[in-house]
Amino acid sequence: MVKISFPDGAVKEFESGITTLEIAQSISPSLAKKALAGKIDGKLIDVTRPIEADGALEIVTPEHADALDLLRHSAVHLFAQAARRLHPNLRPIIGPAIKDGFYEDTDNPEGQLTADQLPEIEAEMSRIVKEDLPAIRKVVTEAEAREIFKDNPFKQELIDEYKDGELTVYTQGEYSDLCRGPHVPSTGFVKYFKLLSVAGAYWRGDSNKPMMQRVYGTAWFTKEDLENNLQMREEAKERDHRKIGRELDLFFNDASLGAGTAYWLPDGATIRRVIQRFVEDREIAAGYLHVNTPNLMNLNVYKQSGHWQHYREDMFPPMDMGEGEELELRPMNCPSHIAIYKHDVHSYRELPIRIAEFGNMHRYEKSGALSGLQRVRVMQLNDGHTFVMPEQIQEEFGNILQLVMDMYHDFGINDYSFRLSLRDPNDTEKYFPDDAMWENAEAMLRATLKDLKLDFVEAEGEAAFYGPKLDIQVKTALGNEETLSTIQLDFLNPENFDITYVGADGEKHRPVMIHRGVISTLERFIAYLIELYKGAFPTWLAPWQVQIIPVSNEAHGDYAWQVAKKLQEKGLRVKVDESNEKVGYKVRQAQVKKIPYELVVGDKEAQNNSVTVRRYGSDEEISKSVDDFVAEIMADVENLSRIKK
Amino acid sequence: MVKISFPDGAVKEFESGITTLEIAQSISPSLAKKALAGKIDGKLIDVTRPIEADGALEIVTPEHADALDLLRHSAVHLFAQAARRLHPNLRPIIGPAIKDGFYEDTDNPEGQLTADQLPEIEAEMSRIVKEDLPAIRKVVTEAEAREIFKDNPFKQELIDEYKDGELTVYTQGEYSDLCRGPHVPSTGFVKYFKLLSVAGAYWRGDSNKPMMQRVYGTAWFTKEDLENNLQMREEAKERDHRKIGRELDLFFNDASLGAGTAYWLPDGATIRRVIQRFVEDREIAAGYLHVNTPNLMNLNVYKQSGHWQHYREDMFPPMDMGEGEELELRPMNCPSHIAIYKHDVHSYRELPIRIAEFGNMHRYEKSGALSGLQRVRVMQLNDGHTFVMPEQIQEEFGNILQLVMDMYHDFGINDYSFRLSLRDPNDTEKYFPDDAMWENAEAMLRATLKDLKLDFVEAEGEAAFYGPKLDIQVKTALGNEETLSTIQLDFLNPENFDITYVGADGEKHRPVMIHRGVISTLERFIAYLIELYKGAFPTWLAPWQVQIIPVSNEAHGDYAWQVAKKLQEKGLRVKVDESNEKVGYKVRQAQVKKIPYELVVGDKEAQNNSVTVRRYGSDEEISKSVDDFVAEIMADVENLSRIKK
Repeated sequence: MVKISFPDGAVKEFESGITTLEIAQSISPSLAKKALAGKIDGKLIDVTRPIEADGALEIVTPEHADALDLLRHSAVHLFAQAARRLHPNLRPIIGPAIKDGFYEDTDNPEGQLTADQLPEIEAEMSRIVKEDLPAIRKVVTEAEAREIFKDNPFKQELIDEYKDGELTVYTQGEYSDLCRGPHVPSTGFVKYFKLLSVAGAYWRGDSNKPMMQRVYGTAWFTKEDLENNLQMREEAKERDHRKIGRELDLFFNDASLGAGTAYWLPDGATIRRVIQRFVEDREIAAGYLHVNTPNLMNLNVYKQSGHWQHYREDMFPPMDMGEGEELELRPMNCPSHIAIYKHDVHSYRELPIRIAEFGNMHRYEKSGALSGLQRVRVMQLNDGHTFVMPEQIQEEFGNILQLVMDMYHDFGINDYSFRLSLRDPNDTEKYFPDDAMWENAEAMLRATLKDLKLDFVEAEGEAAFYGPKLDIQVKTALGNEETLSTIQLDFLNPENFDITYVGADGEKHRPVMIHRGVISTLERFIAYLIELYKGAFPTWLAPWQVQIIPVSNEAHGDYAWQVAKKLQEKGLRVKVDESNEKVGYKVRQAQVKKIPYELVVGDKEAQNNSVTVRRYGSDEEISKSVDDFVAEIMADVENLSRIKK
Repeated sequence: MVKISFPDGAVKEFESGITTLEIAQSISPSLAKKALAGKIDGKLIDVTRPIEADGALEIVTPEHADALDLLRHSAVHLFAQAARRLHPNLRPIIGPAIKDGFYEDTDNPEGQLTADQLPEIEAEMSRIVKEDLPAIRKVVTEAEAREIFKDNPFKQELIDEYKDGELTVYTQGEYSDLCRGPHVPSTGFVKYFKLLSVAGAYWRGDSNKPMMQRVYGTAWFTKEDLENNLQMREEAKERDHRKIGRELDLFFNDASLGAGTAYWLPDGATIRRVIQRFVEDREIAAGYLHVNTPNLMNLNVYKQSGHWQHYREDMFPPMDMGEGEELELRPMNCPSHIAIYKHDVHSYRELPIRIAEFGNMHRYEKSGALSGLQRVRVMQLNDGHTFVMPEQIQEEFGNILQLVMDMYHDFGINDYSFRLSLRDPNDTEKYFPDDAMWENAEAMLRATLKDLKLDFVEAEGEAAFYGPKLDIQVKTALGNEETLSTIQLDFLNPENFDITYVGADGEKHRPVMIHRGVISTLERFIAYLIELYKGAFPTWLAPWQVQIIPVSNEAHGDYAWQVAKKLQEKGLRVKVDESNEKVGYKVRQAQVKKIPYELVVGDKEAQNNSVTVRRYGSDEEISKSVDDFVAEIMADVENLSRIKK
């Protein structure tokens, strides 16, 4: 007999060897129908696995936290089986569940899978669902495994790796896969799925290894969930900053010019410039001293800071300048700002000293990870370093947080959360190994957050190498969490660089550094804003704020330019569309380009000194005097377009 | 007999073997007294050299264009003789005349020369002048030369080099030097001289060779000229941007952080920011499309542009990114802007297309040549590239020139000249070898300059590798000519990159590129402005425009801040000096920091809502209402401080 306890606290005895399915059956037939797996003492098992020891059992049904991953893992096998039926030489390789879906890597020596083959495979998957083939687990010897997968060199490599443990094979119908499991009981459970895309991926993520085809898909327990997810994906595609960036001519990437670098076209560069100036002015008003420091630094400085020891794999190769000098493209701005601080002697009366810069930084990343503006090798960070006395930490922390939240408000960012990022204490490679320093800094940060009454989650292994930090997290269009702002405490660099201030006692004291980024890099921030606004930038940020369309270029062109000049004198970004197109086409074009204000001017407008205004996204056309329009748009701009939020 | 013609056209016959001195004597004894050398058929000779063939003779007197160089070359020998009298083991090495003076490289195994030894040497030089030793030329054999300079390994090296030609030695008193001459007749001619400084210099400019001591000096024909020059040098030292940069806390260099890089302190960064924004706005108003492109590019692109072939020695080492990709720190922005142009198809209607950027660039220079902001390894260029149809070249060239001259006016730059920089046709290494292209471009540029009625000089060997250019030259505080702006024609890159536009005929055509920099790099431009303004920046550019000084911090601090806030709301850069110093000291400090407006506020001012204004450089104190002051300073700023020019 085995003693099984349940989540509700009940404990029952069963005969040893009983299965999850049988236990579910004993509770209710409807539960048995929904049972996908068992979870015994935290370990997932197939519903048909015999239970031979006492334990705590959860019956995994679609509502269970582990259910979707289980379903998607089975969807991988479903896909692979269908793909093999249509392409008998295709080799399934490896396929995990991922966020909102799954993928499977495949290789086909006869010709790699392509996206247009997916519908056929989907149809075959549906047939296999109808066949409702049970997933049967079998423990095999190494020799058996090698025989089963003799045509699949990738699986042979996996067998090399796992052969010292227990090797298991799952079989459904004619299809077998080397797999740890568990799986849903049969293919009939995987009803709502969709294959999404195919992309090249290197075997084991290593660009020296063969390129495989990675097929992405998703699977859900209900039709509604599937449809919602597909719609969300559509929406995300629509919001994708790379797509909008292309459509609105904001920027482009071109690997032949340099992987991981972005080219900002005039309209994108305008957004960048407006944001940079706005943030600089806001920071200067908040007491920051904006400086300008070089993007190259002697490698020795990064050895002193510890970047070279703890962050080297993200740094570019040093450049030999002769005479023993090596210059390094800067990976972070902290040593540069420390140099600024150290250029002068500072009194406690001056503290906090806030040094800021849109500093350009460089990250050595493999080309595979690079994407649009979100993952780049060259970026410009809205960086700042505050030097404070220890007793000023909390107040300055609060000042910075207020600046972040004010700035978010200005940009219309309302959905964000806080994450306290801590070191992984076991990773002494990545994190500077000084337990006392870490514990002190982490405790101080926790206390400060508590005093500020902030809700936050903690994340181990997300700290910088020199200290813990508060990250402010937003969600991208794809639903991924992303760090937009960070505030981090640093007791290490003040030691490394022997930074001091003269206290009221006339003695030298050690300040604390607070590293902070308010809007992240311009690259990441604008990528985020493009997705947030779906490309429809608020008037104050829009590359073009007004487009004027003369009804007839000949008759109304002069008046259009007269209005344009008046608006330009106010500092507005205005263009006149004098192309040889019809008015209706020009109006639609301005909408496509998401220009906040379109002004159509014809005879009536020229006579009245008026304009006919159409706001982006509205069909309404409103006539008003030029002066009234100027007042309206200036209020919009000066108010940072809050009327639109 | 020899037939000698003179500059006035006269021709006389003399006995062969006659000397310049004798001919001068035959004309007038006063001329003979002033005669420094002869110049026969363009070749300078000593006054005592026999003339044995017909020729055209100029008698070189102090007014002659070659006279100062001659004098300074003799001053080098005078210095070396005096130095050897005091330091018998000192080895003179090489000493040319340079602009406004001379130098001599020396080596002394017993201990190198130092600046504090110069006055003693000067005194000895004066004694030798009184001795009036004649300079005697002698042709020697290699063996004789080797014997004379047997204690001087550097001279031995020079003998190796020159031994196949005629070796000559000049002797004055006990001193002999290996020298081609000619020289002024005797040491008595070198009356007005000054030794200026000593600096280390590598033998042959090669950092792998020994370090020598280079002694700088100057020499003139009149006391007045000498004094004027020394005063100019003093003035230049006062204007030196490195000195003012230190005094005003604008920037610093620190080789340990990276040779050839500049750190801009808050006040310097403010000037930089104000200038950058001003220029961006002006260029945008002039039809430029400002873009933003990365500082790293795939090396292949610089191979396509020809930079790698013709400019490689100024480029940083490429960085290996794996997967066969090499990234290169960008040496120039042209390929980046070409990438922007090529991102879209362009119609002839769009041309000229003007792409601009404050682009950061990198120049691989040996650390020896680096100085302040003027010679740096990382810089940000006010760069722009205009793409025009061939028939638009002249008009666009005129537009650019007008922009340059307008901008100069805005910055108060009135003293500049034009230089047409051409290739050296013999240097096929440095210049792209395509004679037809060069001749076409040079002819077109010359014609355009002529049409614009510009006075210009031509300079061979100063072109870019891809084409000729117009340089706009200013003078630095040290009197050196420097290029601030360039406009250059480029027929080469449009070919290399296959750049096209669609003409009215629907066919593809080749545009011409015009490269232009208006204010040069921010580094060089601000170095120049610091010297131009002697650090007293006009109000619109000054890092701090107003300093408010409360008579008593306690009694008038609030009022001071009230006034400050009012000014800050207007966008002015204002600070309040609340330090614990006396008012007089604070007023002096504000003058030292060259802040345009000082406002002193006490009881009277607080009661009347007024301020007592003191302009930088004036002792006058004028009371006025706060509103009147606001009106005054705003007019000053909006007028780009032209009232001060």
